[in-house]
Amino acid sequence: MLVIVTYDVSTETSAGRRRLRRIAKACERVGQRVQKSVFECQVDELRLEALERDLLSEIDEAEDSLRIYRLTEPTHLRVKQYGNFRSTDFEGPLVV
Amino acid sequence: MLVIVTYDVSTETSAGRRRLRRIAKACERVGQRVQKSVFECQVDELRLEALERDLLSEIDEAEDSLRIYRLTEPTHLRVKQYGNFRSTDFEGPLVV
Repeated sequence: MLVIVTYDVSTETSAGRRRLRRIAKACERVGQRVQKSVFECQVDELRLEALERDLLSEIDEAEDSLRIYRLTEPTHLRVKQYGNFRSTDFEGPLVV
Repeated sequence: MLVIVTYDVSTETSAGRRRLRRIAKACERVGQRVQKSVFECQVDELRLEALERDLLSEIDEAEDSLRIYRLTEPTHLRVKQYGNFRSTDFEGPLVV
């Protein structure tokens, strides 16, 4: 299935920036970065569970926001994209 | 239906920051902001068409990225949320 992972991570502290990098890495293992804090991940139930476990172990629930959307097949009917992709510097401040 | 609107808007220029504000406003008219650049919008086909038209008239396709995901019912099974919501200063730099 296709799941969309979106997150807001507070980057005011170095701990926050570290969480952001680790969350991005967990998503990159199973998905494609389509926006700065949006990933599209093709996963089965087992991988989704593992991904959620990884993400929940990283986020600070008081500071961050994480949302996971599950799309149903056929997903090409459910996704519309416009504009461009932009590369991201994980080390720098990520400005939306 | 529930649609998820996500965007990356280049805010390096004042024109970009203006686009960001206008895109957020268009989304706010039909949806709820759940993250800095993620909206959940409950719309029918007609409103979705109007929203897309509004958003496409605002974005700069060379600079920005806009994605629209359409969730199927029952949407409460398709959305998982963790962490907190944070309020946003539209006038200031939006740091993810």
